[in-house]
Amino acid sequence: MVRALVRDPDRERDFAAAPGILTTDPAAIRDDPSIGVVAEVMGGIEPAGPYVLDLLAAGKSVVTANKQLLAQRGAELFTAATAAGVQIRFEASVCAAIPVIKVLRESLVVTNVHRVLGIVNGTTNFILTEMERGATFSEALAEAQRRGFAEADPTDDISGADAAAKMAILATVAFGSRVTLDDVAFRGLEAISDGNVAAARELDMAVRLVGAATLVGGKLDVRVRPALVDRHHPLAGVEGAFNAVMLQGDAIREITLEGPGAGGVETASAVVADMISIIGTAETGFLQNDAAWRSLERLPPGDLRSPFYVHLEVDDRPGVLEHVAHSLAAHEVSVARLIQAPAEAGAALHIVLHEAAQRAVDGALAEIAELPEVHSPPSVLPVISDRGVAELGWA
Amino acid sequence: MVRALVRDPDRERDFAAAPGILTTDPAAIRDDPSIGVVAEVMGGIEPAGPYVLDLLAAGKSVVTANKQLLAQRGAELFTAATAAGVQIRFEASVCAAIPVIKVLRESLVVTNVHRVLGIVNGTTNFILTEMERGATFSEALAEAQRRGFAEADPTDDISGADAAAKMAILATVAFGSRVTLDDVAFRGLEAISDGNVAAARELDMAVRLVGAATLVGGKLDVRVRPALVDRHHPLAGVEGAFNAVMLQGDAIREITLEGPGAGGVETASAVVADMISIIGTAETGFLQNDAAWRSLERLPPGDLRSPFYVHLEVDDRPGVLEHVAHSLAAHEVSVARLIQAPAEAGAALHIVLHEAAQRAVDGALAEIAELPEVHSPPSVLPVISDRGVAELGWA
Repeated sequence: MVRALVRDPDRERDFAAAPGILTTDPAAIRDDPSIGVVAEVMGGIEPAGPYVLDLLAAGKSVVTANKQLLAQRGAELFTAATAAGVQIRFEASVCAAIPVIKVLRESLVVTNVHRVLGIVNGTTNFILTEMERGATFSEALAEAQRRGFAEADPTDDISGADAAAKMAILATVAFGSRVTLDDVAFRGLEAISDGNVAAARELDMAVRLVGAATLVGGKLDVRVRPALVDRHHPLAGVEGAFNAVMLQGDAIREITLEGPGAGGVETASAVVADMISIIGTAETGFLQNDAAWRSLERLPPGDLRSPFYVHLEVDDRPGVLEHVAHSLAAHEVSVARLIQAPAEAGAALHIVLHEAAQRAVDGALAEIAELPEVHSPPSVLPVISDRGVAELGWA
Repeated sequence: MVRALVRDPDRERDFAAAPGILTTDPAAIRDDPSIGVVAEVMGGIEPAGPYVLDLLAAGKSVVTANKQLLAQRGAELFTAATAAGVQIRFEASVCAAIPVIKVLRESLVVTNVHRVLGIVNGTTNFILTEMERGATFSEALAEAQRRGFAEADPTDDISGADAAAKMAILATVAFGSRVTLDDVAFRGLEAISDGNVAAARELDMAVRLVGAATLVGGKLDVRVRPALVDRHHPLAGVEGAFNAVMLQGDAIREITLEGPGAGGVETASAVVADMISIIGTAETGFLQNDAAWRSLERLPPGDLRSPFYVHLEVDDRPGVLEHVAHSLAAHEVSVARLIQAPAEAGAALHIVLHEAAQRAVDGALAEIAELPEVHSPPSVLPVISDRGVAELGWA
C-alpha cells in the first residue's frame, strides 16, 4: 500500500494522486502493516518528530530530509530505530542529492576522516558570489529572493543557523560521535562587510560561508563562519546557489563533492535512493546502526588552529604598524602577508596570519583594539587554504 | 582464513605478513572454502582475467581495481558472477577512492544520468596544469616523472588510452549498457600544442583531457579528448594530479566528485570499503546484478553536438576572414568569439564556435584547410561550458 500524509487533500497539485492515497491521519500510515518504509519530508520539529518516533516504534523504517529534527533530536531517533530493529536514512537532510552521507558512511568506512569543510547553504553562497561580482549585500539578497534562492525571511540562512544544523549531522557521521545543533558555534553574513569581499579579491581569495568540523587529538570542533578561501581551493570555485563538501582523511587525502544543495526533485532523488537502499539491505544489519558509536570531547574553541585574515582601520602615521606588529609578535602570531591601502580616514591594513591558535589571535587583537591609533574593532575571519600560506608562495 | 597471492613471498615488504598468509599458488585461495571475498589488485588482463573468472566460478565474490580487465572483459566477468550468484565490485578501478561507482549505482539509482564528464587521468592533468603555469610539454612531463606521477613509459596516460578504459567503465555504469574499450574514441596530449594552452588562457579557459560519455536520444557516445574548459566550470579548477568526475542527470542537474585519482592507500580504502559492502549485503541480491541491463546503440560520431575551439594560422591580408567565415556559414556553423593575433608568418585566428554537430564543423574545416591563405591544417578542440557560450556573455 502507498499512502501520503498531507494537510489538505483537496489542494491543487502538480500530479493527481490516485484515490485512497492521500490521508490527513498519521495513524493511517503508522497502523498499516503493509507499509514498511516511510519518507518524512515535512520539515520542522513538531509534529514531524513525534510522527517519526511513532513510525519507528511501529516497526517502519524512515527516510528523512529533516535536518533540524536530526540535528536536535538525532539521539532519540536512533535509539528508537535501534530498539525497533528498523533503519533511519537521511541523505537528503544535508545538501539534497549530493551523496555526502552515503560516501562518509559507506565509501569512507575504513578512512579516518579528520576534517569536513562544507559550503552547505546555497542562499548565502549565492549572495557571496553576487557580492564578489560587485553587488552590495542588500542587492544580492534581493536578487536571491527574486530568483527563489532565499525565503521572504532569510534569517536562518543568513545567520548560519541552517548551515549549523547540517554541519551537526555531517560531524556526527564523519566522527561517529553525536553532535547536536547546540554544539555548533555559528556566525553568518553579519560578520562580513562589502570591504571584506573586496579585500579577499585583492588577496586572490573568495569569501565563503564555511562549515568546518575538525577532529584534533581526539577532540572535535564544529563551527560555521564566513572565511577567506584561497582561489585554488576547491571550495572557492563553488558558485551561485551550489553546495560543496570536502572530506579530508588519512587514506583519501581529500574528496570534494559539489552540486545543487537544494531543490524538490534533487531531494526526491536522494529520498528514493535511500528507500531503495533500505529495501535492498533489509534483514542484513548493514548500516542499521546509529552513526554515532563513541563519545568525543569538545575541543576548547580557543585551541583550534587556523590561518586568519585580519582587517584593521588605522591612522596613517609612523609607528602604527610597529605597534600592531608588536602585539602580534607578543602572542607569537606571525604575519604571512600584509596589504596596506589608503582608507577614508587613515589606512586599512589587510593582514593574513600564519596558522595560529584562535586564542592567541584573539589575545593579540584584544590588545590591538586598545591601541589609540586603531579606529574600530578589528575584524577577523579564518583563512582556508589546504596547502598552507607558506606553500602558496607567500612571505 | 586470510591469504595473499604474491609473486615472491621473500621480497622485502613495508609490513610483515604473518606466517601462512603469503602464497604463490592461486589455487590456494580459490580452493579454500573459508575465503568468501577476494580483492584483485594485480592489474592487467593476463593472468588476472583467468584468476578472477576462476574465483567467481568457485563462488567467491571479487573486488577488483583492474580497469583494463573490466573495460575489455567486463561482460565475461559479470556473466560468470551472475552464474555463480556472487558479486563483483570495482570502485577502485576508476579514480581510486573517489566513489563514482557507488554514487552512480546507489545514490543516483532513480536519476537518469545523460552525461558523464571526467578528468580521469592524473598524469595528463598534472602536465596540463604545469603547462598552464608556463612549462613546455617536455618540461612538464619530466617534472611528472620526477614526482612519480608519470611512468618511465607514459604512453598509456599521454595517449588517452588509460582514460578511455575508465570512461568505458563509467559509461557502462551510468547508462546501464556495456561499453568496452573498443567503443571509446580517444585522443591524448599529442592533439594539443603549447599554443593551445596559451590561447585557452586568453579565452579564460583551461585545457583539460576530458572523457565524455553522452547519451543523446537513446544513443551513446564515449570519447576522450583534450578540451577547452570554461574557467567557471568545475572541471577547470581541477589542478595537478587530481581527478574529477561530473555527473549530469535529470533529477540532480550536476554533481561533481573531485579528489586524488590514484595512490596505494587511496586504492586500498576503496577496495576494503567494497569488501565490507559485499559482506554487508550478502544474501540480499542488492547490487549483485550486472551494471549493464540494456543494449544501447552508438551515436554516429559526427552527430555529437558541442561548442568547439578552432585554431588557424593564416596570411594577414584582406579577404582571409571573409573566406573562413563563408565556409563556416555554409555549414551553418556560427562563431561565438574570435581573437586574431599576429603570428610568426601572418596571423593566428582563435575561434570559439557555438554548439554545432561535429560533422558540420569537420566539413567547414576541411574546406578551410584547402584555402590558399591557410598555412597548416586547422586544429580543433571541443569546448566545455555548462552554461553554453551564449550565457557566458559572448557575442
